[in-house]
Amino acid sequence: MIRPALTPIAARLPETVPFVGPEALERASGRAFRARLGANESRFGPAPAVLNAMIQATNDSWKYCDPEVFLLRQTLADHHGIKADEVTVGEGVDGVLGLCVRLFAGPGDSVVTSLGGYPTFNYHVTGFGAQLHTVPYIDDREDLEGLLAATRRQQAKIVYLANPDNPMGSWWPAEAVQRFIEAVPPTTLLLLDEAYGELAPAGTLPAIDTSRPNVLRLRTFSKAYGMAGLRCGYAIGEATTIRAFERVRNHFGVNNIAQAAAIAAIGEHAYLAEVVERTAAARRRIARIAEANGLVPLPSATNFVAIDCGRDGAFAGAVLKGLAERGVFIRKPMTPGLDRCIRVSVGLDADLDLFEAMLPEAVQHAGR
Amino acid sequence: MIRPALTPIAARLPETVPFVGPEALERASGRAFRARLGANESRFGPAPAVLNAMIQATNDSWKYCDPEVFLLRQTLADHHGIKADEVTVGEGVDGVLGLCVRLFAGPGDSVVTSLGGYPTFNYHVTGFGAQLHTVPYIDDREDLEGLLAATRRQQAKIVYLANPDNPMGSWWPAEAVQRFIEAVPPTTLLLLDEAYGELAPAGTLPAIDTSRPNVLRLRTFSKAYGMAGLRCGYAIGEATTIRAFERVRNHFGVNNIAQAAAIAAIGEHAYLAEVVERTAAARRRIARIAEANGLVPLPSATNFVAIDCGRDGAFAGAVLKGLAERGVFIRKPMTPGLDRCIRVSVGLDADLDLFEAMLPEAVQHAGR
Repeated sequence: MIRPALTPIAARLPETVPFVGPEALERASGRAFRARLGANESRFGPAPAVLNAMIQATNDSWKYCDPEVFLLRQTLADHHGIKADEVTVGEGVDGVLGLCVRLFAGPGDSVVTSLGGYPTFNYHVTGFGAQLHTVPYIDDREDLEGLLAATRRQQAKIVYLANPDNPMGSWWPAEAVQRFIEAVPPTTLLLLDEAYGELAPAGTLPAIDTSRPNVLRLRTFSKAYGMAGLRCGYAIGEATTIRAFERVRNHFGVNNIAQAAAIAAIGEHAYLAEVVERTAAARRRIARIAEANGLVPLPSATNFVAIDCGRDGAFAGAVLKGLAERGVFIRKPMTPGLDRCIRVSVGLDADLDLFEAMLPEAVQHAGR
Repeated sequence: MIRPALTPIAARLPETVPFVGPEALERASGRAFRARLGANESRFGPAPAVLNAMIQATNDSWKYCDPEVFLLRQTLADHHGIKADEVTVGEGVDGVLGLCVRLFAGPGDSVVTSLGGYPTFNYHVTGFGAQLHTVPYIDDREDLEGLLAATRRQQAKIVYLANPDNPMGSWWPAEAVQRFIEAVPPTTLLLLDEAYGELAPAGTLPAIDTSRPNVLRLRTFSKAYGMAGLRCGYAIGEATTIRAFERVRNHFGVNNIAQAAAIAAIGEHAYLAEVVERTAAARRRIARIAEANGLVPLPSATNFVAIDCGRDGAFAGAVLKGLAERGVFIRKPMTPGLDRCIRVSVGLDADLDLFEAMLPEAVQHAGR
């Protein structure tokens, strides 16, 4: 059938969903999960005051949202000690990542990331026709020296680093990241994804510095702030770099309830501290459950724990499958070397009770 | 200062906001508008049941939204008598338009639209490096024959038609649009923007037909459904064309409250009928107010009325300015020929009371 042709770049792309949602798995199996521990969400949710802000904002749902996202940017600027024109807001970090690639990496350009790093970033890189170069993890951490070497070798337009990291939960201390920042060539854009930053130990995040035009710090309300469904992420950077987003972003893309909720969330310091503590406690409990089953939990600076199942990817996959069949949704890395692990997000006590109850059977079943 | 280079396409783009929001005007003037009649929002808002659905959905804000938008797509499919794989959902029609351009029009490709048509579509066309070709309105309507001729002449990858139209509020009957659909070359994608479709007279929208791979029908929850702040629009089309969006869309882009609200909104038939009637009544009142001031309201199939101020663009601009100074936010077309008009959105009685009270002074002041 004669039809409009896709652009050459679009024609080469697969039809895909970077993450299959638990909803799709539930539809396929016909069974609802009883514990949702796979998407690195914060089961503790947003602060009560934030829920109230959302409910209040429904009264303004007839209005288009402020395309300049002015109040939220001002709030973020005050929070981080920067200026409002040093931050841009988008439809989650996913949306911001897509715009970064669109602005800075065109067809054939090189982009560097870690092998097994965030798939949605890779989706955007491929989606704009750029060339992805990957650097393996070393000892379950992103390889800073390797990333730098690849960046220089490929004359990369963009290098992506997540700190703390997903899917392993590992992290580098601020000094190492600061050295990395300083070593990235000034013509390469560093995307420093700190989605889990609020949950990391003190000393993990370098000080904010908006003087470098080649560094964007990415933050989100999806993790510690418990608002994954609202789609609100942001980038901090030097003003001219930030202004470039005005060339391409969907100006009305961030929904008005998300803007109102994010403004409220920034002010809830005590609640954030409580979430950080509850997250740490849940991580410790996940680790204990893993150890009780002969598995090895990896240290984590995030809201999930990667658990080394001690054998190959097929075995870890069987554990995941066993948990899914028993109502527990988790995910796992798929990259060789990392794929020996499963990845379990923090949850409420009841969620972890179920995980604790089902893991022995899942492991036993996988071992057959 | 050495910095990362923008891609050649991005480097040529201006930093812009396609629509300056009333919030920005308020910040600049230091005064809040007392009537917001410029953004073609539905001041009647969403149905009470929809507000309840939003409030319920805040409880799920900790969860990532379903990346397949399954329930909403199924609801829309049932509503339109199509299949779920014949509809895709995005961050407002704005978001969907951007993806359409990205998929089908690359650097140097030709795209056809009306001179004075929707600026955000043009923003996306330019944003992906495609070449915009415009066709003037005739008698305040989009020129179907002219659009077709330009499409053929330019071998356009995309042709954009809004029916009903913004900013003039004019429309073509379904038969004329159907002939247009049939005449568009099969290698050209027709973007038929029916954002105001629910508000148009019977006989304006051609029957939905998903057999043509080169037609996408764009709809939104921002207008008749009163949910402009939630950012939810969708495209209906042939399944393979719809599937192409899976190559490039931000799968988690549509916020979970927006998805829940949209699902609820589709079921509120009586409320929609009431909004349609209130919108028509408000249009009639705006027309009477215009006539009482010696101005000529144009017929409208939308939630706004274009008012011919009878002189040039400068005069109409002065009327707009006079209204703004008196607390009434409206907008106006800027394209020569259309710019003799102001554009006034429907509102509540109190909004139109203020418009009625302030228009005489604004006109008198503009005429000096």
